[in-house]
Amino acid sequence: MKYSSIPLAQTVVAQCKKNGISNIVISPGSRNAPLTISFSEDSFFTCYSIVDERCAAFFALGMAQNLKKPVAVVCTSGSALLNYYPAVTEAFYSEIPLVVISADRPSYKIDVGDGQTIRQDDVFHRHIGYSANLKQDVSHATDRILRYRPQWLEDKEINALQEQIQGFNDVELQRALQVAQQEFLPIHINVPFEEPLYNFVDEATVSPISDFLPEKKRCAIALDSFKEIWRNASRKMVLVGVNDPDLVEQGLLDALASDPSVMVFTECTSNLHHPNFFNSIDALVAPIELSENKGALFRSLQPEILLTFGGLIVSKKIKAFLREYGPKYHWHVGEKRANDTFFCLDSHIKRPINSVLSEFYSEHNYQESTYFAFWNTIRLGYLEKRTTYLKQVPFSDFTVFNSVLSHIPGKYQLQLANSSTVRYAQLFDIDESVQVFCNRGTSGIDGSTSTAIGASMYNKNPTLLITGDLSFFYDSNALWNNYIRKDFRIILVNNSGGGIFRILPGKEDSENFERFFETKHELNASALCKMFGFDYRSAADDTSLQEGLTGFFEGSETPILLEIHTPRLLNNKILMDYFHFIS
Amino acid sequence: MKYSSIPLAQTVVAQCKKNGISNIVISPGSRNAPLTISFSEDSFFTCYSIVDERCAAFFALGMAQNLKKPVAVVCTSGSALLNYYPAVTEAFYSEIPLVVISADRPSYKIDVGDGQTIRQDDVFHRHIGYSANLKQDVSHATDRILRYRPQWLEDKEINALQEQIQGFNDVELQRALQVAQQEFLPIHINVPFEEPLYNFVDEATVSPISDFLPEKKRCAIALDSFKEIWRNASRKMVLVGVNDPDLVEQGLLDALASDPSVMVFTECTSNLHHPNFFNSIDALVAPIELSENKGALFRSLQPEILLTFGGLIVSKKIKAFLREYGPKYHWHVGEKRANDTFFCLDSHIKRPINSVLSEFYSEHNYQESTYFAFWNTIRLGYLEKRTTYLKQVPFSDFTVFNSVLSHIPGKYQLQLANSSTVRYAQLFDIDESVQVFCNRGTSGIDGSTSTAIGASMYNKNPTLLITGDLSFFYDSNALWNNYIRKDFRIILVNNSGGGIFRILPGKEDSENFERFFETKHELNASALCKMFGFDYRSAADDTSLQEGLTGFFEGSETPILLEIHTPRLLNNKILMDYFHFIS
Repeated sequence: MKYSSIPLAQTVVAQCKKNGISNIVISPGSRNAPLTISFSEDSFFTCYSIVDERCAAFFALGMAQNLKKPVAVVCTSGSALLNYYPAVTEAFYSEIPLVVISADRPSYKIDVGDGQTIRQDDVFHRHIGYSANLKQDVSHATDRILRYRPQWLEDKEINALQEQIQGFNDVELQRALQVAQQEFLPIHINVPFEEPLYNFVDEATVSPISDFLPEKKRCAIALDSFKEIWRNASRKMVLVGVNDPDLVEQGLLDALASDPSVMVFTECTSNLHHPNFFNSIDALVAPIELSENKGALFRSLQPEILLTFGGLIVSKKIKAFLREYGPKYHWHVGEKRANDTFFCLDSHIKRPINSVLSEFYSEHNYQESTYFAFWNTIRLGYLEKRTTYLKQVPFSDFTVFNSVLSHIPGKYQLQLANSSTVRYAQLFDIDESVQVFCNRGTSGIDGSTSTAIGASMYNKNPTLLITGDLSFFYDSNALWNNYIRKDFRIILVNNSGGGIFRILPGKEDSENFERFFETKHELNASALCKMFGFDYRSAADDTSLQEGLTGFFEGSETPILLEIHTPRLLNNKILMDYFHFIS
Repeated sequence: MKYSSIPLAQTVVAQCKKNGISNIVISPGSRNAPLTISFSEDSFFTCYSIVDERCAAFFALGMAQNLKKPVAVVCTSGSALLNYYPAVTEAFYSEIPLVVISADRPSYKIDVGDGQTIRQDDVFHRHIGYSANLKQDVSHATDRILRYRPQWLEDKEINALQEQIQGFNDVELQRALQVAQQEFLPIHINVPFEEPLYNFVDEATVSPISDFLPEKKRCAIALDSFKEIWRNASRKMVLVGVNDPDLVEQGLLDALASDPSVMVFTECTSNLHHPNFFNSIDALVAPIELSENKGALFRSLQPEILLTFGGLIVSKKIKAFLREYGPKYHWHVGEKRANDTFFCLDSHIKRPINSVLSEFYSEHNYQESTYFAFWNTIRLGYLEKRTTYLKQVPFSDFTVFNSVLSHIPGKYQLQLANSSTVRYAQLFDIDESVQVFCNRGTSGIDGSTSTAIGASMYNKNPTLLITGDLSFFYDSNALWNNYIRKDFRIILVNNSGGGIFRILPGKEDSENFERFFETKHELNASALCKMFGFDYRSAADDTSLQEGLTGFFEGSETPILLEIHTPRLLNNKILMDYFHFIS
């Protein structure tokens, strides 16, 4: 075992170890050498080396998303740190404990013209759970201290000062790591080091304070009045956002599904399945929007109670509907953040969803209602029409997503990129043994591939990423990664530009549209696959797609990417026509 | 002409136009549609479309660096904006007027779970000249206003409110743009838009307030006492950092070069040339560091006056020397920021360097001194030894930089990547008609290629980028750019990892070194060249390098990249031995 001789480096590493943070994603640098050496020489830690910090942070985020525990990223000083910001913000809104550790110069070297030196403390102030701005050791680099210290400062006073600083750093670190672990938020630990940076010792000279801060207490909210209102309401909508697989007990799902006064709306990212659930929200809402009878239909869909749980909602249509036709009550259930997405949030029930539903359904005498039955007839209707429509339209994004999603073998992790990808995936059925994830915190296109690779690292099942061309090329450095599993799979739906812009409402076919909105291009992924050791396949029609999918999910010596070229100008029309067809 | 119907979009565009900001780099998105439409439909503006915002911002920075005037980047809401941060910080420390314009949601939609929505206002607070957090129009999207406005608010009151908001936005915009133009700092303009985003009008409905804020006054500092001290000192060191070409009058350079009490230290990024100047600083300082007589030599090099101008200094060795052997006076000359790089800054003379040197050398009676002559003998010695050394060492980074730099035709723009690249370039002569640039504000490896492409756009000369492998692959999306000139050239010195880490002092050859510091890889650029339409050449020895350089700078139908593979394990030794050899 080797440790950096710098006490602060030892403290940071010891605190990570004590808190069970064992996965460390390191980007190269010199200022972070004390951390890199200490982490990589200690067999408790599994260290990964990723050069591009933007990718490194999303890779760590994917890992933390999957492990449901903190993962650390470590970088050198300067702009390296800023490249973490997109992932930090995704972690902030998705409530994922990403632990950012940045090496820094001592404060007297900041803003004096040293290279790779910026103002790192509090740099993520808008989107961070905690910023621990640690203080540099005074016992280290004594020549510097000696030169600048006041004349009267004696050795024993320096030692006392060092002890104080060490205590401060220890508490700051504990506070930060507590936020990561108990509030599931990203944190930033900024660690200033003086040179020399490459000295070692065989045994650590400092040990962290052993008392951890007390766990935050939670008092369980009483459910009596909620239960009363729930039992008496005859139109209840349950809407589930991003949600971990296997979170809700099957008995409770059955109870919801059997309640005639309840409609359960699930998104693909909710990882909830039941034959009675409404899993293709837009297919229900879009036809109403197109209907002459729109007002009356929306009023009959309008719930008395809206119960939400999980993270962010993908469907813009359900958001627009609920903002316009608000429920009497909106309750959000769960221990994480509650968003007032529909401007009518009434209560945040800070309890696990299972405990709340258990109380609501402690006896199974349901409120009489035609709410579910009425809309379920409509639902069965559009599901049938979808089948018909799929048979009559040409090869396009729409048919491709149907084919691909139905081909995924059971027990797969499915990672979806933003933004067309997750929207198309919402329209079709996904096998319930498939776990679905998407970065919906900021809904950015910027780190989907890196996240998927990170999330695949420790998953017992193999991972498939479905992505669009802009998102894929944006994050192409994700493939510059020595840890990609052989069973990792990418399906790239390449419609030669930002197809989403042809789907979004309101856009005009101006002469500048292709250039500045759609950003048309003719790139394909074959060169990147060659460069980064992926087996490359491509398809451009039904036959080649079937061929491309043959054996695609079987064992292989390298990861595989299947690129599917779809007709840029047709996709949008086929999607829009679908909503008319099922109306 | 078409304008967005949203008053605020019109105001932003009109203010940019009024301030002569004509280059707009747009990344695709929907929230920024009002800006995209208004900018791209107005022939005053030249608009560029770049998908990856990290590259877009560095591309704009390069353009602004070259034009010496503000260039704008425009993005949609959400994490898109955060990808600008590395370039914003580089602009902050390099004092380049990058104008960041981000579309945002209206404030009531932030933190409620909407997609692509983060806390954008003040997000760059640590590294920005000005943050203009504009307010949304109340006259736009009146249904929203009507729903939320207090009952008593009448139409005329809404109009009055809109007028107030418009006034506020106008002033904020002017303040921000003034900082960009007069202080050469990056600024951030955050622009919230309510839907609908795609409505147009044929004529603008708002016009910006016409009175621009008064220009900041500067009072010229009197130079009498400085001049007195300068004339009487017999050991004066002039050290020039990043500096625009052709900034200093030739007569003044000659005066400095003829003064026996003056040593002028120039870095390649200083763009200053004279046969008497010391342009290879490390070749002077390194042998002293290695000498047994170190203390005495450094004391004889120690200046009474250190005069600096320009931006940041590359050489770590000169920094370390001057921090240890501080001058009696350190004066920094120039109207931009003055850094206390050596912890002894005495005065910031806020005047143009030409006016200061003109006063210092109004009469040419020099102080007698052997300062220049003594060190010049040493300089001529190491220059001779460099020639000998180059003949006897094998093909490596060292010989490659010598070859490449001597092959650059006159009247080229040379862009250097960080960090080995610029350090090697310091060791050799570069023709004085070559203009040299490097992102030394944060000294990051993250945007060198994008910056170079941006800087090439309007340069009357062609551009050569010399880059290392980590920097090149980090910024590979730079090549995803439809505007690259045919005469753009890249020389990629590929030493299969971060060669810099083998050079930096203190590192140890631990078993984890290759993995976490050097980050060894086997990538080459051929696939990327194929993908992005570059002609690809490669070399791995003297013969193939000569072949690769043949015709390399001549006219071509596509841009060309020459990749030079150098021996990873040898490079470091050859460089270290060089400093011993010239000692």
